[in-house]
Amino acid sequence: MSFLKTLDTNHYDVIVVSPRNFFVFTPLLPSVTVGTVEARSITESIRKIMRKKKNLEFCLSNCVHIDPFNHKVLCRPLVNFSEVEKGDFELEYDYLVVAVGAQSNTFNTPGVEKYCHFLKEIEDAEKIRESIVDCFELAALPSKSKADKSKLLHFVIVGGGPTGVEFAAEMHDLVYEDLHKLYPDLMEYVKISVIQSGDHILNTFDERISQFAELKFQRDGIEVKTGSRVLEIKDNAIVTKDKATGQITEVPYGMVVWSTGIGTRPLVSDLMKKIGQTDRRALATDEWLRVKGCENVYALGDCATIEQRKLLEDVSYIFALADADNSGTLSVKEFKDTFESIRNRYPQIDLYLKRQHMQDVASLLDDSISQKGGRPVLLDIEKFKSALSKVDAQMKTLPATAQVAAQQGEYLAWCFNHKTECKSHPEGPLRVRGEGRHQFPPFVYKHFGQFAPLGGERAAAELPGDWVSMGRSTQWLWYSVYASKQVSWRTRALVVFDWTKRFLFGRDTSRM
Amino acid sequence: MSFLKTLDTNHYDVIVVSPRNFFVFTPLLPSVTVGTVEARSITESIRKIMRKKKNLEFCLSNCVHIDPFNHKVLCRPLVNFSEVEKGDFELEYDYLVVAVGAQSNTFNTPGVEKYCHFLKEIEDAEKIRESIVDCFELAALPSKSKADKSKLLHFVIVGGGPTGVEFAAEMHDLVYEDLHKLYPDLMEYVKISVIQSGDHILNTFDERISQFAELKFQRDGIEVKTGSRVLEIKDNAIVTKDKATGQITEVPYGMVVWSTGIGTRPLVSDLMKKIGQTDRRALATDEWLRVKGCENVYALGDCATIEQRKLLEDVSYIFALADADNSGTLSVKEFKDTFESIRNRYPQIDLYLKRQHMQDVASLLDDSISQKGGRPVLLDIEKFKSALSKVDAQMKTLPATAQVAAQQGEYLAWCFNHKTECKSHPEGPLRVRGEGRHQFPPFVYKHFGQFAPLGGERAAAELPGDWVSMGRSTQWLWYSVYASKQVSWRTRALVVFDWTKRFLFGRDTSRM
Repeated sequence: MSFLKTLDTNHYDVIVVSPRNFFVFTPLLPSVTVGTVEARSITESIRKIMRKKKNLEFCLSNCVHIDPFNHKVLCRPLVNFSEVEKGDFELEYDYLVVAVGAQSNTFNTPGVEKYCHFLKEIEDAEKIRESIVDCFELAALPSKSKADKSKLLHFVIVGGGPTGVEFAAEMHDLVYEDLHKLYPDLMEYVKISVIQSGDHILNTFDERISQFAELKFQRDGIEVKTGSRVLEIKDNAIVTKDKATGQITEVPYGMVVWSTGIGTRPLVSDLMKKIGQTDRRALATDEWLRVKGCENVYALGDCATIEQRKLLEDVSYIFALADADNSGTLSVKEFKDTFESIRNRYPQIDLYLKRQHMQDVASLLDDSISQKGGRPVLLDIEKFKSALSKVDAQMKTLPATAQVAAQQGEYLAWCFNHKTECKSHPEGPLRVRGEGRHQFPPFVYKHFGQFAPLGGERAAAELPGDWVSMGRSTQWLWYSVYASKQVSWRTRALVVFDWTKRFLFGRDTSRM
Repeated sequence: MSFLKTLDTNHYDVIVVSPRNFFVFTPLLPSVTVGTVEARSITESIRKIMRKKKNLEFCLSNCVHIDPFNHKVLCRPLVNFSEVEKGDFELEYDYLVVAVGAQSNTFNTPGVEKYCHFLKEIEDAEKIRESIVDCFELAALPSKSKADKSKLLHFVIVGGGPTGVEFAAEMHDLVYEDLHKLYPDLMEYVKISVIQSGDHILNTFDERISQFAELKFQRDGIEVKTGSRVLEIKDNAIVTKDKATGQITEVPYGMVVWSTGIGTRPLVSDLMKKIGQTDRRALATDEWLRVKGCENVYALGDCATIEQRKLLEDVSYIFALADADNSGTLSVKEFKDTFESIRNRYPQIDLYLKRQHMQDVASLLDDSISQKGGRPVLLDIEKFKSALSKVDAQMKTLPATAQVAAQQGEYLAWCFNHKTECKSHPEGPLRVRGEGRHQFPPFVYKHFGQFAPLGGERAAAELPGDWVSMGRSTQWLWYSVYASKQVSWRTRALVVFDWTKRFLFGRDTSRM
């Protein structure tokens, strides 16, 4: 969506193939599971968003096959009224942008596909909403025993990442803000558990947030079982193994939400096989989002991962580039000049400087310089390598978040919009192994922080500059950020209305 | 719902068995089909409405069997997580109120069940909404021919009653207010047809309304095929027969909505068989809503029909009652006194007086009196019969509307609330075949008029006093009446918000 919104379609014929004719603001999906926000409030029709764009066609179809060698994709209509033929059709492309996202990863745990709910799509959220009401309604029947009630009202979340934790918090709010009025006799049987294989929940967040969340959940009566691995989901019980003690436990459940990470969609793994990218969890691209191993194919979002070029791989080329006079040594100035013009090529440089609180690239040499007593030095290739040796350690896979995907989409559209200009006036960094400059600057991710809503009008947030904020005011910050990030004025108005509605009337628990 | 809302549950233990844990304001269902109003805006949780009532239990179950002789019902939970047993349970009752509504009547037309949409439940409306988008999305695919597009975008409504007409109007608004912006190239292929077996659409309404609707539809390009019967629905075409010419036509369609009237639910026809009520379309009750042929079973709404007692059946008893001195003749005063105390028992009397613009029951004798030159007369039984002969012709089955059902529910709850008082102080009319009075006054329906929204912000209405109102202002009257009739403040706020939202942002056509 961010790619399409930014792309100047005056210069391209665009065909969008998607099994959904709407865009979903996925960060609010956990809110949809319990009715804090309605499904249609976080979705916007793609045709509506793109209404004013020229040369844009939309096909409500699944892309079932990518042929990167013949530049074709095969599409299958999502619906078909004919009982005989599937209506498959083929599209040719000059450029292909793969942005199909990912699917939930079951790690091949038995029973997960059959008995668990996922939380990736809007349908998942709606199914969870229905299933919660089912559990309560079933437990309320006169024929149910106490043991039945306890089983039915045990809600289990597997995975203590942001999605799992947010769902657990929403679930807790639903129970103690709304359902307790409708099913007062059932309250004693309700239990919410989070099963996390790591030692802490929210372990990609700052430690303080992780602790705050665990403490809040403890106070709220949400059980957090850390260091516990799910072995199997049975018809009526979930089987877990304590990593430390090896003890195996079987607990009955009413509903399980599986939220342990992402896996590859069949379309993507099929493409990866074709282009020789095996043993990976996502399509590898270079820093310009071009899929490695094929031409004119781009990938972004959860289905892709950027393989950042290592600085040390190119170190001798960089040295040669900097050493203009072929003297075999570099001065600090030569080093600095070259690095300023290639630092964009290796985003790990900036990350490293920032992490080490360094001001400019020359600081990279500080260690070498101090050894020499502060006098200007000339570096040979060995010293050069040792000065840069730690930089590559900063390379990190980008997280599979909407924030990353949105920035990548915007970036890639910018590249397409500037293709003609950048061909004659390249804007990228110097090529270290070739002549001249790269056409475009590589993609650089800017992290604006992340939120973890924890329920009861309290949230935690990691903000830019390593700030951490927690509590009620953070929840209000969350409200304003999430409202502002909406894709259209319509969804913005609806989301704000839904929040207001919830304050006034509570959440709706009609089973539909 | 109206029964439950009015019932004083301090004196009864109430168990509600329903496959839906929410109440649907069905008159707005056609608006849900195209997203003018959202499904959750016209539904309210039953548990929430009943929250403050004592002694009330709710079971989300289908009632699968009624045993009127042993005073038991068999219930099956709507959902069940066990793969082995269905979890059926039995409930005993002292009083049973059957208010299960009706289902669509296919008149056994082949293919209807398989290929048509109905419009009775909230799920039906949501399926129609999805199906409309499917037709447009499929027609927009690059692989579709012109003939495919024309087929896919032919929307057929079978049945020209209020529901069918309102849906056709909503469909037209959706296409020309919203979809034309998203699928501009498809507009030329769109066609909406209404197939009506009678000579006019809206034939239960005033003739002026019927004409107004036909004229409006003609101007809007909605084809109205009157005098046409559907013989069969095939995979890809609808087969109709012109009643006048006998000509058989086959027209391809994209979607068919079947809205030709109501039929009996299996639970009800099963009960009817047991109590010897065969060859009927609904449970026959007396004027107190008691199901004929069993004890302590009441029925109301679309599943029931009141069998009004004929005046002429009781005529000799009434004569005997009025003729206190056994003289064999009645004076006008005797006639009048008796009729004032039994007119409630035969609502057709009031209907007849009103229709004939008569002031009081004595006017029934006007014909006889005028023959005698205006002098006071004494009637014998034959003259008495002839004076009353036309009255029974006013008896009409009540229409299957929410208005009737709501009044019946309120009435029945009033009876239950006054059971003790009315036992000692009966409030009903004199018994003509027995001693004393009936315990309760019989149910009398008050018709407050009916609306037919015709799209494009125009509606037609039959108002009390044989008024007819049509046009834009009537639509605003419709808005205010339908907002005020909502079951809760929540749905009222949501419905009004949805209407506002539609004005601001149009209807959402995301496929979910």
